[in-house]
Amino acid sequence: MITSTANNRIRELVKIKKSAKERAEKDVFLVEGPKMFREIPKGKLVEAYASESFLNSAAGRKLLQKTQTDAEAVSDRVFEYLSDTRSPQGILAVVSQFHYSASDLLGKQNAALLLVLENLQDPGNLGTIIRTAEAAGVTGIILSRGCADLTSPKVTRSTMGSIFRVPYIYSDNLEMEIQALKKEKVCIYAAHLQGSVEVYTESFTGPTAFMIGNESRGLNENTAKLADKAIRIPMHGQVESLNAAVASSILLYEACRQRLS
Amino acid sequence: MITSTANNRIRELVKIKKSAKERAEKDVFLVEGPKMFREIPKGKLVEAYASESFLNSAAGRKLLQKTQTDAEAVSDRVFEYLSDTRSPQGILAVVSQFHYSASDLLGKQNAALLLVLENLQDPGNLGTIIRTAEAAGVTGIILSRGCADLTSPKVTRSTMGSIFRVPYIYSDNLEMEIQALKKEKVCIYAAHLQGSVEVYTESFTGPTAFMIGNESRGLNENTAKLADKAIRIPMHGQVESLNAAVASSILLYEACRQRLS
Repeated sequence: MITSTANNRIRELVKIKKSAKERAEKDVFLVEGPKMFREIPKGKLVEAYASESFLNSAAGRKLLQKTQTDAEAVSDRVFEYLSDTRSPQGILAVVSQFHYSASDLLGKQNAALLLVLENLQDPGNLGTIIRTAEAAGVTGIILSRGCADLTSPKVTRSTMGSIFRVPYIYSDNLEMEIQALKKEKVCIYAAHLQGSVEVYTESFTGPTAFMIGNESRGLNENTAKLADKAIRIPMHGQVESLNAAVASSILLYEACRQRLS
Repeated sequence: MITSTANNRIRELVKIKKSAKERAEKDVFLVEGPKMFREIPKGKLVEAYASESFLNSAAGRKLLQKTQTDAEAVSDRVFEYLSDTRSPQGILAVVSQFHYSASDLLGKQNAALLLVLENLQDPGNLGTIIRTAEAAGVTGIILSRGCADLTSPKVTRSTMGSIFRVPYIYSDNLEMEIQALKKEKVCIYAAHLQGSVEVYTESFTGPTAFMIGNESRGLNENTAKLADKAIRIPMHGQVESLNAAVASSILLYEACRQRLS
């Protein structure tokens, strides 16, 4: 059992937890808690660490047995040190990062439904968007390099496991990605407060992508101009804008509704 | 100019900031920043405090002049101490609390559209829900006593001003409120993962209320049973539930869509 925070492996894990660069170099990220642990796709688990109390609990032993996992034991104190949460849940995994190609984002069975996110910086918000995107049937997500890092512990946790299932790529050049989507006959909508078309007058049953901008500034005007249409969510009262996760949900679920009916 | 955090008025403001009981007893709450300040309804401002830098800035003087406000000057250091945010914006107001009757929640012109929130505890989430509710055309909100306090600085801030405009009441007895709504012919829907009807098969053009439960536990079963129908949001993939603000947005905007068309 590892009982010291000075242990080399513990030091390395903390680096992975804290640094996006370290995660990229090692091509891994961290996942915590039994719920997320259970959802790790086959072949993606690199190694697992469990706290002493977790290993001594019936639920803990059962989970490790069921998933046939050899977890390295660490003392509760060291586990708390490792964990990114205030109430550590006793199990932490190192998982291989996902690598998707542009064509993975288009899905296979149905018309493509994509989200293009520009400079979304709130980790909780971004995680919530990924989770909602999976629920709405999104086929893929493109993130500008200025977005928060999906592999950071807070974003990963907020996705509630959707990070394992929704194909995504980070892009240094959104314009290039959007031109490529247009070649695939994807209709590109920019979510915009002054959009000329209203969300409820459009059909999203064909290949569709929604572009969503930064929480406070919205999309850069140059990015918005790349869209086929600027789209507006109607707002009553004196509300000036909606939260980025809320706007994403409304657009994606309108597409979901149209595709179900 | 107040230059000491030991000043009696500053001590009182800090009590109001920190304590829901104090806010209730004094029947006030605090509002920060120029945007929220501008939106304070007429007759609701009790007093205002401005930092020295704010008073010395052109934008600050203009705002106070335009709103004809006599703000008490406080040193920048004292203002930072007063403020609930990391980047204080120099203006803070004491505002009278709002008091609505049950009938205020039903609106006047159109069919009522209500949200009933049970034990929503995340301040940011609750504020986002209030903001989205105003945008979707909600006529009123009923909150169980177990919800976060709308007059706490973080919730108030997250509403982005909607707290000034959406009628709401806190209730010790949701069952009583729901029975009263039923007498007004409001159809009550419980958002429920195992709901028997799907959101996109229902009509929400008549008087409608959506009940939303706690972020992790959902609605109490006894509360859910009070509804006319349990309603389900369709979910693709392996998503088990949606964020409470996201679920609220999807339901409210579906009602908004139907009412617009």
